[in-house]
Amino acid sequence: MIAKSNVYVVIMAGGGGTRFWPWSRERHPKQFLPILSDRSMIRETVDRLHSFVSSENIFIVTSRSQAAHVRREAPQIPPRNLLVEPAGRNTAPCLCLASLPIHRRNPEAIMVALPADHAIADRSEFLRTLGTAKEFAAKKDFLITLGIRPTAPETGYGYIEKGGILGKIKGTKVFEAKAFREKPALNKARAYLRHGGYLWNSGIFIWKVGVFGEAVKKFLPQLHGDMLALAKVWGTSREKKVLKQVYERCQPISVDYGIMEKAENVALIEAQFGWNDVGSWSALWNIRPKDLDRNAYISGNQPAGTRILAINSSGCLIRGEKKLIAVLGMKDTVVVEAGNVFLVCPRDQSQEVRRIMDGLKKKGWKEYL
Amino acid sequence: MIAKSNVYVVIMAGGGGTRFWPWSRERHPKQFLPILSDRSMIRETVDRLHSFVSSENIFIVTSRSQAAHVRREAPQIPPRNLLVEPAGRNTAPCLCLASLPIHRRNPEAIMVALPADHAIADRSEFLRTLGTAKEFAAKKDFLITLGIRPTAPETGYGYIEKGGILGKIKGTKVFEAKAFREKPALNKARAYLRHGGYLWNSGIFIWKVGVFGEAVKKFLPQLHGDMLALAKVWGTSREKKVLKQVYERCQPISVDYGIMEKAENVALIEAQFGWNDVGSWSALWNIRPKDLDRNAYISGNQPAGTRILAINSSGCLIRGEKKLIAVLGMKDTVVVEAGNVFLVCPRDQSQEVRRIMDGLKKKGWKEYL
Repeated sequence: MIAKSNVYVVIMAGGGGTRFWPWSRERHPKQFLPILSDRSMIRETVDRLHSFVSSENIFIVTSRSQAAHVRREAPQIPPRNLLVEPAGRNTAPCLCLASLPIHRRNPEAIMVALPADHAIADRSEFLRTLGTAKEFAAKKDFLITLGIRPTAPETGYGYIEKGGILGKIKGTKVFEAKAFREKPALNKARAYLRHGGYLWNSGIFIWKVGVFGEAVKKFLPQLHGDMLALAKVWGTSREKKVLKQVYERCQPISVDYGIMEKAENVALIEAQFGWNDVGSWSALWNIRPKDLDRNAYISGNQPAGTRILAINSSGCLIRGEKKLIAVLGMKDTVVVEAGNVFLVCPRDQSQEVRRIMDGLKKKGWKEYL
Repeated sequence: MIAKSNVYVVIMAGGGGTRFWPWSRERHPKQFLPILSDRSMIRETVDRLHSFVSSENIFIVTSRSQAAHVRREAPQIPPRNLLVEPAGRNTAPCLCLASLPIHRRNPEAIMVALPADHAIADRSEFLRTLGTAKEFAAKKDFLITLGIRPTAPETGYGYIEKGGILGKIKGTKVFEAKAFREKPALNKARAYLRHGGYLWNSGIFIWKVGVFGEAVKKFLPQLHGDMLALAKVWGTSREKKVLKQVYERCQPISVDYGIMEKAENVALIEAQFGWNDVGSWSALWNIRPKDLDRNAYISGNQPAGTRILAINSSGCLIRGEKKLIAVLGMKDTVVVEAGNVFLVCPRDQSQEVRRIMDGLKKKGWKEYL
C-alpha cells in the first residue's frame, strides 16, 4: 500500500466554453456550470477527491482568464497549487507543467491526471479504481489510463483496444493498451461495442511522475528540454518569463496523441463508475433525471424557481432562467434560456452549437460569445 | 351614388388575447399588436378607411379594459364614437349597440361593420368592394356580407354558399347567400374549393341600419326589446345603468348565427382584396415576407434591433425582443420571445397555444396570461 502523501492529483481546468453555449461562454466554460447538481463541475471534481488525497496534494492547471474563478470554486486548494498556463496548448504541455512542482516536492510521486468537467456517477467505484491504478503505478513503470466499458455505440469518444493481462490488483485485472482508436463512425462504434474488447478513452491518467518524464523525453524531446529549462528557474523571479517563452514556442498536442499512442508501457484499467464527459446538450439530456415524457429540466437558480411548461412534448431538454419557457408539441428538442440568449435546436444537432458561435463571430455579435 | 355622410363604419375591437400568446395577452389582444407592419392592427384598420368615411362616422366598440388603449391607437375618432361594452357578448349585441347612436344620428344610415384585427393586403380593392356593397345596400333592403374567394382549403374559416344573382353594381355581381357553412373538415374544405361556389365568411357586413333593426326584431326579439329600452335612455344619466342591465341579461350570440343564417334577405359580394383573419402564428407566417429558407422574422422594436440567428433552419416564424434568438436545425417551428415568456411550438400546432394558457391557469401562473 502506497502512502497517501505520495499521491498527487492534477485537475485539468482549461477548457473553452463552446459545447454548452449559451449557458457556457468563452469566459465561463462548462467546468464552472452547475450542470449535474447545484455545484459547479470543478467543485464536484475537487470534492470527489476528498479522502483520496489531501488538498495540499491537488494541483489545478487553468488559464489566466479562469484562474480567479477557479480559486473561488476550489478555495481549499492552496494558492501555490494553482498553475496558470499562459496559453492553451492541449494536455501534453499542461501535464508536463504540473509534473514540475510535483517532481520537485516528491520525485517518487504518483500523479493522477483528470479533467475538471467530467460526470462521474459512482464516486466510491471511481475512488476504488483510482486506488487500483495507483497501486499498479507504484509497482510497475507504466503509463496507466482508465478505459470505460461502453454502454452505447458512441461516436463522440475515442476508444482503446484491450491487449493482454499485465497483472492483477486486488482482483482487478490490468490490461495492456493495445491500440488507441480515434472517434469512430457509427458502424465501427457498433462493431467495437459488439466485440467487447474496446473501451472509451476517459482522459484519466495515472503514472509515476518519473515514468511520465521519461516518456516525454522519448516522444516529445523538445518539450522535455523546454520543461527542464523551466524546472531550473521554477520558484525564481525568472519562472514567469521562461514559462511564457516555453508556451509561446510549444505546439499544442494531446498527451494521448503525443505519448500514449506511441509508448510501449501503456496499461489499461477497465472502469465502470458511470462516466460521461458531458460533451453536448444531448449528452446532458442522457444523464439528467426525466419526467414521464422523457423531458429533462434545468432550473436557473432564481429565487422564485424557473418556470417551465411543457405540453404534449417529449424528449426535450429545457433550461429556463428568468422567463417562462412554454413548449408545446415539441419532440427531442433543446430549448435553453441563458443570459442574453435563447437557443432552440434538435437534440441530435446540439453538438453543432459551435456553428452558431461561428455565425455570431461573422456578424461581430461578440456580446453573445 | 349615396352621400358619404350617410355611411357609418363600426369597428369591432373587443377580441381577447389568446391566439398570439405570448405576444398578445388578456389585456393586450391581437388588435393592439403591430403584426403586419410597425402599426397596430386597429390603427391599420382605422387608417384603411381614410377617404371612405370621415372619422366622425367611425364607431369603435370595445371593452372597458381596452378602451384607453383603443383611444390611444385611434386618436382621430371622436371620444363619443367609442362604445364600451360592459361585457363581451359576441357580435350580435355588439352591432345592436353600435346601431343605436348611428340610427339616432341618421335613420337612413348605411352601416358597415368589420373587425379591428383582420389583414387586408389590397386597400383600394377593399374600398372598391365596400363601395359596391354600400350602393347595393342603398338600393335594396338586404343584409350584405363580403365573401372571400378561397385560395386554399382552409379549415379555420366559415364558408358561405353562393346562390343566384341578385343584381349588379358597376359590373360587380351581387349574389344571394344560399347557406352558411361552419368551419369544415379538410376533405369538405377541399370540395368547397374545387366546387368554386363557396366563399370564406369574412365577418364584414353592410346594411341599412333600419334593415338590420328589422332583422334583429324578427330573429332576436328579446335583444331587440332590450335595445329599444336602451335607446330610450341613450344620452341620459340612466344610459350606463340600463346598458349594464342589458348586457347582464343578454346571451352571447354571433350575428352570423343569430341573424345571417336565418334571414332571407342576405346578399353576398365576392371579394378579392387579400384578406386574412390572421388567426394564428401559422397564419401570420403565411402572410409575412420570408427569406430564402422560408423563415419569417418579427422584430421587437428595440433601439438596437432584435437579433435573430437562424442556421440550417427553414419554415420558421421567429420573433425576438430583447435576447438573441439562436435557432439551429429547426423546421417549421414558431419561436417567440414576448415579455416574460418564451414560446416554442411546431407551426402546425400554433393554433393550440390556448392549451398553454389553460395550463398556466391551472398552475395559477397568472402573470403570464
